[in-house]
This record gives sequence, structure tokens and C-alpha cells, in this order.
Amino acid sequence: MSDDRRQRGQEIRRSAFGENGEERWRALNEIDSGHAESILEYCFGTIWARPGLDLKLRELIVIAATAAQDLPGEVAIHTRGALNRGASREEIIETIVQCAPYIGFPKTNHALEAANGVISQWDDHPDWHA
Amino acid sequence: MSDDRRQRGQEIRRSAFGENGEERWRALNEIDSGHAESILEYCFGTIWARPGLDLKLRELIVIAATAAQDLPGEVAIHTRGALNRGASREEIIETIVQCAPYIGFPKTNHALEAANGVISQWDDHPDWHA
Amino acid sequence: MSDDRRQRGQEIRRSAFGENGEERWRALNEIDSGHAESILEYCFGTIWARPGLDLKLRELIVIAATAAQDLPGEVAIHTRGALNRGASREEIIETIVQCAPYIGFPKTNHALEAANGVISQWDDHPDWHA
Amino acid sequence: MSDDRRQRGQEIRRSAFGENGEERWRALNEIDSGHAESILEYCFGTIWARPGLDLKLRELIVIAATAAQDLPGEVAIHTRGALNRGASREEIIETIVQCAPYIGFPKTNHALEAANGVISQWDDHPDWHA
Amino acid sequence: MSDDRRQRGQEIRRSAFGENGEERWRALNEIDSGHAESILEYCFGTIWARPGLDLKLRELIVIAATAAQDLPGEVAIHTRGALNRGASREEIIETIVQCAPYIGFPKTNHALEAANGVISQWDDHPDWHA
Amino acid sequence: MSDDRRQRGQEIRRSAFGENGEERWRALNEIDSGHAESILEYCFGTIWARPGLDLKLRELIVIAATAAQDLPGEVAIHTRGALNRGASREEIIETIVQCAPYIGFPKTNHALEAANGVISQWDDHPDWHA
Repeated sequence: MSDDRRQRGQEIRRSAFGENGEERWRALNEIDSGHAESILEYCFGTIWARPGLDLKLRELIVIAATAAQDLPGEVAIHTRGALNRGASREEIIETIVQCAPYIGFPKTNHALEAANGVISQWDDHPDWHA
Repeated sequence: MSDDRRQRGQEIRRSAFGENGEERWRALNEIDSGHAESILEYCFGTIWARPGLDLKLRELIVIAATAAQDLPGEVAIHTRGALNRGASREEIIETIVQCAPYIGFPKTNHALEAANGVISQWDDHPDWHA
Repeated sequence: MSDDRRQRGQEIRRSAFGENGEERWRALNEIDSGHAESILEYCFGTIWARPGLDLKLRELIVIAATAAQDLPGEVAIHTRGALNRGASREEIIETIVQCAPYIGFPKTNHALEAANGVISQWDDHPDWHA
Repeated sequence: MSDDRRQRGQEIRRSAFGENGEERWRALNEIDSGHAESILEYCFGTIWARPGLDLKLRELIVIAATAAQDLPGEVAIHTRGALNRGASREEIIETIVQCAPYIGFPKTNHALEAANGVISQWDDHPDWHA
Repeated sequence: MSDDRRQRGQEIRRSAFGENGEERWRALNEIDSGHAESILEYCFGTIWARPGLDLKLRELIVIAATAAQDLPGEVAIHTRGALNRGASREEIIETIVQCAPYIGFPKTNHALEAANGVISQWDDHPDWHA
Repeated sequence: MSDDRRQRGQEIRRSAFGENGEERWRALNEIDSGHAESILEYCFGTIWARPGLDLKLRELIVIAATAAQDLPGEVAIHTRGALNRGASREEIIETIVQCAPYIGFPKTNHALEAANGVISQWDDHPDWHA
């Protein structure tokens, strides 16, 4: 059922990003509610809900895929997601450093700075915690 | 020691790609031996040799990072690496499908086709086995 | 309903790519049926099914978005789609030439060659016609 | 004639971006006047001046091509251009949402936010109107 | 004068790529003659004709810019151009290796293989010589 | 020896970026000291230390490779490097303009603005001078 997936997607999103993530989703929802629905139903309710890999590993994979496209904002978002899934600081930094030979140093440095910005402010941001 | 790292890098590469990988490295070594040395010393002897993440997970991360740049040839190489590190077919395919909302369907499809090409011919290619 | 969207997605896909497109979808379906379902339900059944822009214009937009990422295979597929939606040869070529100052000449040339390959063989390929 | 094209290019630029666009062009002209001349003569005076597609559709195509490269600043500029060519808010947002399955959600979200920023401030910015 | 630039552009192109380059230009000219004219007038007749950097250095810069976008076909074309401008094999390979930390190893390897393919067959291809 | 290369890398970095560059390296070193060591040993101590091209030309090549990936922050850093290696303002701007037909106008404009920002503030920033 489509409604079930939407519901499941919302739960998976909340458990990754906390209240801070809700704000960004609501902003996208105001721009285009159909696109925002696809984020819940397809991205979080279908892809993230698949069995076969645990959620922490999925966060590390998405960090690699967004670092490779030089999207440090998304690296920061999914660093929050990875911490909320139980990843250690070391696993997140290690994921990015592993990408370096495959994406080059500039994109690697941007991703490291974005991830480190989240990690170093984690304790001061209860709104990032799910 | 630099020599130790070179040696370690060579071992890590061999255990990922088998004899088939050696051929490609030798071709790059003929084009520029210094660049080929960096592949051994920096990429495999330094980055891949770091503690903190196991080699199978590193292969999945590199598959995500190369799929995100539409590099299906590298997805194929690291699918061989992931299989040699004990990844299941499902874990490899799942890694690529998880990237889809973040990289778009064309790059995802190219990566799936590349990975599937390796997986479906795995038993017929002893030279891919490490 | 999710099933309705899947059905609608299948119809939209068929009316864009004809029998040739079915073959590629079936190959992806064998690699990962869940991903292939998302292609039908999310991509074709949800996004392509939205009101607000006609299907011919959507094909031209996708040609621009894939040319910009140097994906000539997708430019070729959506050139078939655009021709099946009633776009003229001139509209397709014009779309790509319009991108040139924004994506550079190499990607533009690759897209022009891909589109022209489809256009010049259109009459000989009934399997491309929807 | 080259001078004719330069003149025509200037007119096409002005009718797209208004006074605000002139400022940016003048800044580029101070950095390198030859490059700024090419913007007028080649980009606006030659490509944008071609027959075969109307100016509104060209703006939508450029929005797709720049969204696909994660260039939200250019998406914002050409959202202004599209509004000045008579595009509706819906047509612009729809163009970007159509790209989502082909470029991924992060780039789509960046483009939607950039376009929405222009659309929501349009009435307060007479300098954006041509 | 625009005609002068077109003429100058044609001369610069011929002196870079020889007869083999003419064939590719003619194919593009058949697809869209206006776009092919821009290649002569804007790209070769305006940009390549600027003073301030010699033609050999411009070829090395274009090799770097196309290697960085994973465009090995263009790396091959401009390797021919660089050799025709008097670049040594070492300068071309060195240019690509210098990019490695900034673009990652996969794109670097593709560019090295493309450049080496031209260099190693140079003596057998009089049609590549200008 | 690896230690020699690290030392040489540090010298090459300092002679490119001055005290300002040290600050950024130290920030990366705090995030991951192993990655920061690779920047010294592999990037600066190995690649930049190779014979075959002078350091000024290497800076221009890196400006082209980073402009092509839309990395204006890196274009700014290496504009400082190029100025410290004796490149003229004209050579740096010319390098970027030469890339325009191969990378498109948006990335070219971003790179020109980044380079010009450094060039126009050069005299006021003794911390950028090596």
C-alpha cells in the first residue's frame, strides 16, 4: 500500500534526522507537495526500507555517494543520520577518507569539513538527535 | 617505511582483484611508473590499509563513490573486489540501489548493469578470483 | 493507489519507447525487481504523469538534463521518446544546441551525435516506434 | 555581421534579466572583456537568437541543464529569465521536478530552493523585471 | 570581422588536428551547421586565437579540463593537438598525472590510457599530423 | 624515503600558499591526521615534486582541472599558488577563459570571479604571499 510506505518513510526520516530534518522537509513540501511526497514514499519509504543492509551502512553509502558529487550539505545531513544510527565518528570520517583516491582531494576535504562540523557540534544540537 | 607500504599495497590489491587486476596495473605502470607506484603506496598501501572499516565495507563505499560519478568500469572492478572480500550479490546490488535517489536513475542503471555483468560471469572467470 | 500508478507508468513508458524500451526494462527487472518497480511507479507513474507540462516538453527537458551530465545513451533513449511524442528533428537538435554555452562543447557534441544517430535511423527501426 | 549579433545578444539578455543582469555582466566585463563579449555575441546573440524554439522554452531547457550540474545560482538567474519570458511558477517548478529521477534528489532540492527563492521574492524586486 | 575569425578558426583547428579532425567537424556540420560554425568562430577563431598563452600550453590546459570531466575522447583529440603543437610525450603525461590528486585515480587512469593510445600510435597515423 | 617526501611536500606547499595555507592544512590535520599526511606526502611531496613541468605551469593545470569541476574555492587557492610561482594576472585569467568552450560559461564565470577575487586583493593580503 502506498499509504503504508508514506508512513514508514516518515518514520525512517524522523529516526535519521530528528526535528531539524522535519523543518527542511516542510520547506520542500511548501514548494512542491508532490515532490515532497516522493521523498517520503519512494526515497525513505521504499529504498531506505528495503532489507539487505542495515540503516547505519546505508548512511555511510549515501555519505560516499554525495561526497563524490561534491554535495557537502548532504554529507552533513547524512552525518547526522549516521550518528543517529549509531555510527562512530571514526566510521564516518573513515568512509570519506576511503573515497579520497576515487574522488580527489578537494571533494574529500569539503566532505571532511562538513562531517566534522556536525560531529563537533553534535552535543550542542539536541534538535539534530532523533 | 615507504617500501613496507608499497608491499602492503600490492598485497591488498592482489587480494581484491586477482590476476586480472595485475594486468591493468602493469599497463598503467608502462604508461607512468610513478603514478602506478602511487596507486600501490598511497591508494592501496595507505588508504585501504587503514584500520577502522573492514575491506568488504570499503569496497561497497567505493562502489557508491564511483557509481555516483558514472564510472561503470570502476563499479565492475570493485564488484570483483567486493566479491573477493566476501560480499554477497545482494549486498552489492543493494548498495547501488541505495544510491538511486541521490544520483539519479541513469547512473544507477549503468552501475547495476556493470555490477550484474561481473556477478553473472563470476563462476566463469577464475582470473577475477583472488 | 500504488497499483494504478504502476499501470499508468507502464503505459507512459510504452508510449515513449516502444518495444525496444521494454527489453531494457526487463533486463533491469531481472537485476533488481524492486528498482524496476520504482522506475514504473515513481519515475513514469508519478513524475511523468504529473499535469502542468506536456510529454513532448518533458522529453526535451530530460534530453537537456542528461546531455548536461554527459549521458549520451540517455539522450538517445529520450530522442526516441521525443520523436514518439511528436517532437520534430529540429526541436530535438535545437534543445541540445541551446545547452552548449551552459555545458561546454564536448558534452554537446556527444549529445548531438547520439540524437542524430537515432534520428537518422528512425525510419529503419520500427521497434523504436511506440 | 558580428556587430549585429552583439547588439542582438545585448537585447536578448536585457529582455531576460533586467537591470540586475546588467550588473553581473559588467562585473565579468571588468575581469575579461573578451569573455564578456563572447557571452553577448556567441551565447545570447547566436544561440539564444536561433529560430526553432521560443525563448520561454529555451529558459526551461537551460534550467534543466544547470540543475543537472548542481548550479543553483544559474537556476535562479534563469528562473528570472523564464518569468520575464512569461513562464508560470508552475512551469518552472514542474521543469525541475521532471529532472528529479534523472539527476537525483539533492540537486533537485537545490534547484527547487533556488527557483522558489526567486519566485517568492519576484514582486519585491523590480530590478529583476525586464 | 566575423568572417576573419571563422577563417582563422579553421586554420587553428587544422594546425591542431590534421585531416582526421576535419572529418569529425564535417560530421557535426551535417548535424547542425550553426553549431559547427560556432566551433570555428567562437571556440577556435576567438578563444584559441587570443594572445597571452601559446598554443601548446592551451592544449595542456584543455587536456586537464577534459580529464577532470572524464572525457577521454577529448583527451585523445587534444593529445593529438598537443603533439602537433610540439608538446613532448612527457609533458602530456605529466599534465594528466598532475591532475590525479584533484580529480581522483579513475578519471586520471582513463585520461592516461587515452593519451597513451594516441602517443603510441602517433607514427602510424599520418592523418593525425597537421 | 617517505620522511624526505613529507618534508619536501611541506616546503612545496608553503612556497605555494604562505601562512594562510598552513591554517587550512592544520584544520584538516585535526580532522584526520593520516589524510593530512597524504596531502603532504602524496600530493605535494610526490606529484608536485616531479620533474618535467615547472611549478607555475602545474598551478595553471590545477586551475583548469578544478574550474572544470566547478570548485571555485580551489581555483582561488591555486590562484594564490600561481601568483606565488610568478604567474601573471593575464596568464591565470587566460587559463580559465581557455576552458570556457570545454566546461561551459557558468563554471567559467565562477572560476573567473574566484580568481579575480584573489588577484584584486593580493596586495592587501600579505598572509597569502609565500
